[in-house]
Amino acid sequence: MKVGIIMGSKSDWPTMKLAAEMLDQFGVEYETKVVSAHRTPQLLADYANSAKQRGLKVIIAGAGGAAHLPGMAAAFTSLPVLGVPVQSRALKGMDSLLSIVQMPKGIAVGTLAIGEAGAANAGILAAQIIGTHDEAVMEKVEAFRARQTETVLANPNPAEE
Amino acid sequence: MKVGIIMGSKSDWPTMKLAAEMLDQFGVEYETKVVSAHRTPQLLADYANSAKQRGLKVIIAGAGGAAHLPGMAAAFTSLPVLGVPVQSRALKGMDSLLSIVQMPKGIAVGTLAIGEAGAANAGILAAQIIGTHDEAVMEKVEAFRARQTETVLANPNPAEE
Amino acid sequence: MKVGIIMGSKSDWPTMKLAAEMLDQFGVEYETKVVSAHRTPQLLADYANSAKQRGLKVIIAGAGGAAHLPGMAAAFTSLPVLGVPVQSRALKGMDSLLSIVQMPKGIAVGTLAIGEAGAANAGILAAQIIGTHDEAVMEKVEAFRARQTETVLANPNPAEE
Amino acid sequence: MKVGIIMGSKSDWPTMKLAAEMLDQFGVEYETKVVSAHRTPQLLADYANSAKQRGLKVIIAGAGGAAHLPGMAAAFTSLPVLGVPVQSRALKGMDSLLSIVQMPKGIAVGTLAIGEAGAANAGILAAQIIGTHDEAVMEKVEAFRARQTETVLANPNPAEE
Amino acid sequence: MKVGIIMGSKSDWPTMKLAAEMLDQFGVEYETKVVSAHRTPQLLADYANSAKQRGLKVIIAGAGGAAHLPGMAAAFTSLPVLGVPVQSRALKGMDSLLSIVQMPKGIAVGTLAIGEAGAANAGILAAQIIGTHDEAVMEKVEAFRARQTETVLANPNPAEE
Amino acid sequence: MKVGIIMGSKSDWPTMKLAAEMLDQFGVEYETKVVSAHRTPQLLADYANSAKQRGLKVIIAGAGGAAHLPGMAAAFTSLPVLGVPVQSRALKGMDSLLSIVQMPKGIAVGTLAIGEAGAANAGILAAQIIGTHDEAVMEKVEAFRARQTETVLANPNPAEE
Amino acid sequence: MKVGIIMGSKSDWPTMKLAAEMLDQFGVEYETKVVSAHRTPQLLADYANSAKQRGLKVIIAGAGGAAHLPGMAAAFTSLPVLGVPVQSRALKGMDSLLSIVQMPKGIAVGTLAIGEAGAANAGILAAQIIGTHDEAVMEKVEAFRARQTETVLANPNPAEE
Amino acid sequence: MKVGIIMGSKSDWPTMKLAAEMLDQFGVEYETKVVSAHRTPQLLADYANSAKQRGLKVIIAGAGGAAHLPGMAAAFTSLPVLGVPVQSRALKGMDSLLSIVQMPKGIAVGTLAIGEAGAANAGILAAQIIGTHDEAVMEKVEAFRARQTETVLANPNPAEE
Repeated sequence: MKVGIIMGSKSDWPTMKLAAEMLDQFGVEYETKVVSAHRTPQLLADYANSAKQRGLKVIIAGAGGAAHLPGMAAAFTSLPVLGVPVQSRALKGMDSLLSIVQMPKGIAVGTLAIGEAGAANAGILAAQIIGTHDEAVMEKVEAFRARQTETVLANPNPAEE
Repeated sequence: MKVGIIMGSKSDWPTMKLAAEMLDQFGVEYETKVVSAHRTPQLLADYANSAKQRGLKVIIAGAGGAAHLPGMAAAFTSLPVLGVPVQSRALKGMDSLLSIVQMPKGIAVGTLAIGEAGAANAGILAAQIIGTHDEAVMEKVEAFRARQTETVLANPNPAEE
Repeated sequence: MKVGIIMGSKSDWPTMKLAAEMLDQFGVEYETKVVSAHRTPQLLADYANSAKQRGLKVIIAGAGGAAHLPGMAAAFTSLPVLGVPVQSRALKGMDSLLSIVQMPKGIAVGTLAIGEAGAANAGILAAQIIGTHDEAVMEKVEAFRARQTETVLANPNPAEE
Repeated sequence: MKVGIIMGSKSDWPTMKLAAEMLDQFGVEYETKVVSAHRTPQLLADYANSAKQRGLKVIIAGAGGAAHLPGMAAAFTSLPVLGVPVQSRALKGMDSLLSIVQMPKGIAVGTLAIGEAGAANAGILAAQIIGTHDEAVMEKVEAFRARQTETVLANPNPAEE
Repeated sequence: MKVGIIMGSKSDWPTMKLAAEMLDQFGVEYETKVVSAHRTPQLLADYANSAKQRGLKVIIAGAGGAAHLPGMAAAFTSLPVLGVPVQSRALKGMDSLLSIVQMPKGIAVGTLAIGEAGAANAGILAAQIIGTHDEAVMEKVEAFRARQTETVLANPNPAEE
Repeated sequence: MKVGIIMGSKSDWPTMKLAAEMLDQFGVEYETKVVSAHRTPQLLADYANSAKQRGLKVIIAGAGGAAHLPGMAAAFTSLPVLGVPVQSRALKGMDSLLSIVQMPKGIAVGTLAIGEAGAANAGILAAQIIGTHDEAVMEKVEAFRARQTETVLANPNPAEE
Repeated sequence: MKVGIIMGSKSDWPTMKLAAEMLDQFGVEYETKVVSAHRTPQLLADYANSAKQRGLKVIIAGAGGAAHLPGMAAAFTSLPVLGVPVQSRALKGMDSLLSIVQMPKGIAVGTLAIGEAGAANAGILAAQIIGTHDEAVMEKVEAFRARQTETVLANPNPAEE
Repeated sequence: MKVGIIMGSKSDWPTMKLAAEMLDQFGVEYETKVVSAHRTPQLLADYANSAKQRGLKVIIAGAGGAAHLPGMAAAFTSLPVLGVPVQSRALKGMDSLLSIVQMPKGIAVGTLAIGEAGAANAGILAAQIIGTHDEAVMEKVEAFRARQTETVLANPNPAEE
């Protein structure tokens, strides 16, 4: 288990599963869990506190609105924490984004884009972090990146299906 | 001790002291403490967890940027929590406001205005909450409100010093 | 009758009923009424002026757009007033939020999140306020909070229905 | 007395005096008064209720933050009400603007720009409204407009003092 | 013909017709016309230039996006001009609002809310302006306002259809 | 080939094809290509580097979100680059707009409106640029503009289909 | 005279002079003039109407707030128009930007960044447009670009003065 | 050399040096360099392309306004890239933030807060990433975190210097 993917609510899963799918592509093991900063603060503390001992290398945390999960996870662990702002209903994720990214000096959260793109990219960035010391994972990331480039190059005509 | 005034950093004090000054006016006892959601998460958990047993009736929490203190305090206590968005440098407190007010269903934070006005009003609202069952405090709030009205009525000329 | 739930228009009811439903859970009596700051300003003045004598402890006021109801209710009563920004059509409730939360120093409105989450949380916060002096209500709030926590703990798998 | 210029606080006068100065130019009589929607709601009701009988033709109302004065004045009178969003500290008047302009269907406030330009233009618009039935005032507005045009035409070189 | 209702495009009519319907209620004669600041600038100049001579008392101008119609109409006439920000696709009318309301000192546009509420209120405000010197119109506005109040008072129960 | 229309993804084509259709109207030859700043940065460098030698006069680049394509195309060519902010999902194109328009001093991108209107206008502006030295194209632009004016003038009634 | 630099007010000159200085570098002749869309609309119409006959190739228009100058200039000419959003006092140029860039389909304004960077880049883009058919100008643009690149390459150490 | 700190301009150094200072604390070697996406795109390509071979583990990239440097660095390398939005003049870094964080699916940038706090946190996060496989660095991060916690705990009185 290298990556922990946590989210504040089951309703975040349709977004956050893109992080999981990305890690699947790179052969990086991960766990997924609903951990709510507000409804289960003690679980969050325990989860983040124990993450490093349990062998995790990166935590990906997704939440929406007043999204405190990523920042609070970061407060309880020295592992790198990546934050995914889940798109909220009224403010479309602008609240989620600012709640996650505007962390004060001293505790860092690496924040990705609002919504599905951000979740997928959290998976990629987690793999890149692991890849800094695991060449097999890095090669899979690079192969994914190369395929992605090839797909664009092979389909240059925007009007063609 | 009826009210706990907590804030994420000493730099929040120039704002948050307006809450204290307001409670002074109403003769409501309070304590003030720096409690950082991100740098001292365990202290925050302990503080909020024990607040009710220690006799507090209301918690006022102020923070800026990705302001997690009010929401996390609310997660650890059943006391009413009032949040004050401290004005931040780049985004002028819009980040603080959204991080505090946009709480998900289930955990409430009563949020006041950005900055000093919000801090003062948090003191007033805390007194009003206590005043719902303490007529002496309520009378002081009402006297303050009456004086405030009188001041406007007695100085109707905007151009006069 | 402990809580007055008022709103500027019948169209706010689908949002505001979540406050009522929450109070039902806690066994807190409440009344609901359409009171428009702009179309029935005298009714608003009378309602808020008489609220304390009629035994209310808290007023919950919801409105959208240039939402003046919560602030004007607060101007006419010394009871704690909680404001719910109803999601507006064009600006998605950002106008409602700023119109409610940015109160000047001297008159306080405890503001909740935009839309349904905010309305539900207004019900919770009203119960917490009453609960500061009514242990039976506070126990119901704590039981609700505990069930809420249990629900998350019992369903940790985000991908499971 | 044709125009009433009201504002929520003496601190709004440096902005609102530009409305008065503009009316001076057009020879339109006016009165100025501090009337706070939140601190003196009854005064506001009385002021707006009696405005028409006292011979006023237009009310100009300026306020900042959660600016309820213009909308509430409009709620108590059938006279045209013009609103001036005073620049606020944290949000630079965006809160003032939305609180004034986003009125619900049924009660209108003609809103001007944030700050001094808006206050001056409220004076001009009030004079234009009076001028629809007072040719002497309209001629003064037109002469002001013509001078304004002349000033630009006579100084076409932007780099020249 | 007392009021000219102009708009930048036929697509603005579903919004702007609410101004016309409101004027119908008050028995105020009006004309409606598509006048585009960008596509027919000379028509706009001619329309606004001649408006006063043709007997108009007020111009209501609605437009969306970079909405220049109200401000440019105001530049060509001394009549009071009311602006309606039509809701735009991407930015939901925030662009329309700022383009209309943020007029520089010297040329005024009385701006209403974004979308249908703003259009209806432009009709009301135009009638109020005319009503400052036409008691029959003012009485109709006041009767409308009274009915509006009655409707709220007669239907206080938000949960009732 | 006078104009290169590039875009970051095939999903931008429904927007960007309006630029192509506009150029068709003016008889300006163009090419269209998917070029991703992020997935094919080398292709972008090669495309923009060679654009002038290949005879292009203008590049139109459309992208959404953190839209780097227009600015990076401009970094690799001395040809005029026009940027079209494609409407993004969460933030409705505000992110695309700011990412394109807020270029630092030294490298310019002429930015159009968010979405389809912006794409169409990029086609018009490209033709205007070419038309500064190709009177046949300029005449077609002017004829289009005249037809556009005629259409408004011929259909002044907003309520008529 | 190849480029016309116009602005709504003398107060825009400190911003707009950066466009002029850039054109000086490229040896492109230009004229500068204060032309106000709101205070001198007829001058604007005449200026833009006659611009092409007078030999101008590009118009650069700068304005702040409800900035109508660039769009209205574009309405009166078929020349390419570049818009510079001048930083406004309250909203920091966000109003200027949206008023300029969000033009409806049919009339295009190529918009640059808010403030001085945007003005300088308008000068560069104007030169690039002229350079599409004037190799001497294009060479000067390219030389400027090369120097700009050299300056960065020659000073890679950020901490060195 | 483990970390590359790049920035778009020397003017970003007062912000970005906080990343360097943080890495100094953790004994992590780094290099600093001005690399402009827009003025030296080829240098950026070369820098990012060669970063992994040169032994870098993480790239920290800071830029303001239409901030393309972090995203384009990420496009040219498989190393993890952290982005710091430098506070911009007009829009206070909101443009920088959105330009960096809203990356499309496929290329990730871990984004930190606007300004100095973000730069410092980028240093911390880079050390955490390296620390996932370098226990000496992780211990230094944890010691820093512990000291940070101690400082708050030792100074609980907000009103005390």
